[in-house]
Amino acid sequence: MNTSRLVLPFIAAILCGPALADGDGLDAKAVATAEGLRDTAMRGSQAYAIVESLTTEIGPRMAGTEAYDRATAWAQAKFKSLGYDKIWLQPVTFPVWERRAERGRIVSPFPQHLVLTALGGSESTDGELRAQVVEFDSLESLKAAPDGSLAGKIAFVNLKMRRAKDGSGYGPVSNVRRSGASEAARKGAVALLIRSVGTDSDRLAHTGMMRYEDGVAKIPAAALSVPDAELLANMLKRGKPVTVALDIQAGVTGSKTEYNVIGEITGRGKPDEVVVIGGHLDSWDLGTGAIDDGAGVAITMAAGALIGDLKKAPKRTIRVIAFANEEQGLLGGKAYAEAMKDAMGTHQLAAESDFGAGRIYALHAGVSPESKPVIERIAQVLAPLGITWAEGGGPGPDISPSVPYGLPWAELQQDGSDYFDYHHTANDTLDKIEPAALDQQVAAYAALAYLAAETAVDIAPAAPAAQK
Amino acid sequence: MNTSRLVLPFIAAILCGPALADGDGLDAKAVATAEGLRDTAMRGSQAYAIVESLTTEIGPRMAGTEAYDRATAWAQAKFKSLGYDKIWLQPVTFPVWERRAERGRIVSPFPQHLVLTALGGSESTDGELRAQVVEFDSLESLKAAPDGSLAGKIAFVNLKMRRAKDGSGYGPVSNVRRSGASEAARKGAVALLIRSVGTDSDRLAHTGMMRYEDGVAKIPAAALSVPDAELLANMLKRGKPVTVALDIQAGVTGSKTEYNVIGEITGRGKPDEVVVIGGHLDSWDLGTGAIDDGAGVAITMAAGALIGDLKKAPKRTIRVIAFANEEQGLLGGKAYAEAMKDAMGTHQLAAESDFGAGRIYALHAGVSPESKPVIERIAQVLAPLGITWAEGGGPGPDISPSVPYGLPWAELQQDGSDYFDYHHTANDTLDKIEPAALDQQVAAYAALAYLAAETAVDIAPAAPAAQK
Repeated sequence: MNTSRLVLPFIAAILCGPALADGDGLDAKAVATAEGLRDTAMRGSQAYAIVESLTTEIGPRMAGTEAYDRATAWAQAKFKSLGYDKIWLQPVTFPVWERRAERGRIVSPFPQHLVLTALGGSESTDGELRAQVVEFDSLESLKAAPDGSLAGKIAFVNLKMRRAKDGSGYGPVSNVRRSGASEAARKGAVALLIRSVGTDSDRLAHTGMMRYEDGVAKIPAAALSVPDAELLANMLKRGKPVTVALDIQAGVTGSKTEYNVIGEITGRGKPDEVVVIGGHLDSWDLGTGAIDDGAGVAITMAAGALIGDLKKAPKRTIRVIAFANEEQGLLGGKAYAEAMKDAMGTHQLAAESDFGAGRIYALHAGVSPESKPVIERIAQVLAPLGITWAEGGGPGPDISPSVPYGLPWAELQQDGSDYFDYHHTANDTLDKIEPAALDQQVAAYAALAYLAAETAVDIAPAAPAAQK
Repeated sequence: MNTSRLVLPFIAAILCGPALADGDGLDAKAVATAEGLRDTAMRGSQAYAIVESLTTEIGPRMAGTEAYDRATAWAQAKFKSLGYDKIWLQPVTFPVWERRAERGRIVSPFPQHLVLTALGGSESTDGELRAQVVEFDSLESLKAAPDGSLAGKIAFVNLKMRRAKDGSGYGPVSNVRRSGASEAARKGAVALLIRSVGTDSDRLAHTGMMRYEDGVAKIPAAALSVPDAELLANMLKRGKPVTVALDIQAGVTGSKTEYNVIGEITGRGKPDEVVVIGGHLDSWDLGTGAIDDGAGVAITMAAGALIGDLKKAPKRTIRVIAFANEEQGLLGGKAYAEAMKDAMGTHQLAAESDFGAGRIYALHAGVSPESKPVIERIAQVLAPLGITWAEGGGPGPDISPSVPYGLPWAELQQDGSDYFDYHHTANDTLDKIEPAALDQQVAAYAALAYLAAETAVDIAPAAPAAQK
């Protein structure tokens, strides 16, 4: 963002008279146009058709797979058919992780099949691994186990996730998923099993990324479905040794370059300044990636297309990004930040949709105090959608790597009450999406992006950019 | 049932004075004892612990598997530990069907994995079968297809199941499952795919039995999960040929003898006359058989045990039956009917619990008009449980083969609103059961069985026994 950020709102307010007296840099016509976009979207948007197309014609599109390449071509073609006037690719290179096979069963005392899935990044077992299971109720209690106490054992962390509209139950349980394997390996364990990071009670396991710490043995790691975790816990309660057999074939096979797919509606006045909205194009491999994050891609593609359909484009460019490889470490977002770090000053505002397909109920923003009148005006336009402006929140995952470089962000917070019922499972499918809920979100993104692109105010970030 | 059925109520009414004036053959003490059983169960029964034990220590126990033998031993031990004074086995012989492997995918135009499961009884594909899919919206439209029109094709019947408290949506869709393969084969089809018989939208397929008609080619048959059926339908809507690959390895491998496991609380006055309650011990192989029908076994075992705990046993014997192989054609029920057809006159009343774990809301009975005062009295005792006596209903599946031989039956109708969300899927697990709902059912079964066993009235069937 250029250095006039802090000064311009006041100049604009003086120059443009009453309509801008409150410092939002927007005239009545701009506000009316945003309201029109909002109301048009609420009457029916293209978002559901877009996510139907992505999930039907591509389906699962895990980073590193041939399906992601097909998704890339799909996104380019979709941007084109939606009337975006500039479509381009941004390379993202990363190690390719493969899931080849995964099986689990209780061997004794009561033989039973187990439903599980390898965590992203997991290494293989050496053929079938058989070992006794030791249960922990949290990552903390695993960390507290004496060194060597898990030698030759499978550590099983059975921590239940709390359901919450804002997804606040995710943090503690996803930490188990991310760090559990190395913590268990430190105690001598030969594998990690976790209770799925999910709020459902379906016999479908939740995958998701894990990491090995340097210098610690890399042991295979998998998540049991919630009913299977409860089955295993019930069996362990009987006090007899429980032996589980795991056969996981997975691992990193090389590296690949994929692409962030970017579509733009070029601004009429300041085409080099951009408002970024988007979602991530990659998904996990188990479902069809409908809510994570076909919905986000569809909502923002449809919102941008609505703005593109206006007779007069907004001042700044609307840039819709379908990010590559969010799931395995925000790699598309990091590549964007790295490529754009010297041009972050051209970024007016960025917002990502990546929390399912539930209705938006709150607007948050990470902008300077002087930019807040713009957010306030946006909030007024969004209020009829049931959206309230509130402090807090945070940038979307693929936006976050750019924030330290000075990217102002907004968040349109979705109702995620049922998001973790389906997240990272085979159950992430189109039927979980309500078309009208998508329309509400398109309405919000279209109005937000348009007003941010049209305002005379150059929005500044909440905190100064980090040293580069 | 002996020939005194019709006469005895009136004699009893005369002999026993006012308490029996209404013809129910029950005195105030008997009613009070039944109310005590009811209230004791409502304070907490053993049913949940029993189904927890069965699903944890045995889990899936499909007919024909080694796991069913373990379940048999489990049931014998459980009857013993619950204090049943006579435990015996009744042989049931049947062909063994095996599920060895099942895989499906869409090959073109848009390659995707498909979640499916072979229907019980299905034959194998010859390696991987690839064929074009033709969709039908009902069994009727499949039947209406011209002969030969499906030559070399896969028939796909995409009929949605209706959710209903009484399970009335099951009939039409289960007919597709049962008869679809032969109907499709008649038109030349090489395989059948159906939309799962279920009310859920989970990516878990519902298995269940199918039959081949004599003289018609035996083609493999599988059910897609509901989201997969919708995916396939959405793909077909695009008007391009859709090719699916199926690899199903399954079939009948021989025959086996398993056992109905029977536990009895011997009656104090007429030990040779029996009140039968029960559920079926076998399950499908995908889940742990919690709601189908671990719940039924547990409810009736716990109800019988409560009666067994009384200081004074009721007049007649309480016979709790854990039926073998219900799922593949009521084979345990048929074996019982065949073994007992000449002794059906010793059967006072029979009721089976096999509709999940939801609370009971209605009492139905198939008894003679003269026996109805007993049912009316039972209904009065059950009323505080939210149970209403109503016409209609039918005998439970394993009871039904005995009804033509003169078995009087009762039905304690459960709320099955969510039964078909989980029925015959991997999702049939313990977490779907609410312990308090089981207690309500134990209360109802205990009171019903006790009063039927205690009454001076010999309950007669609604219709005369069929010619043997």
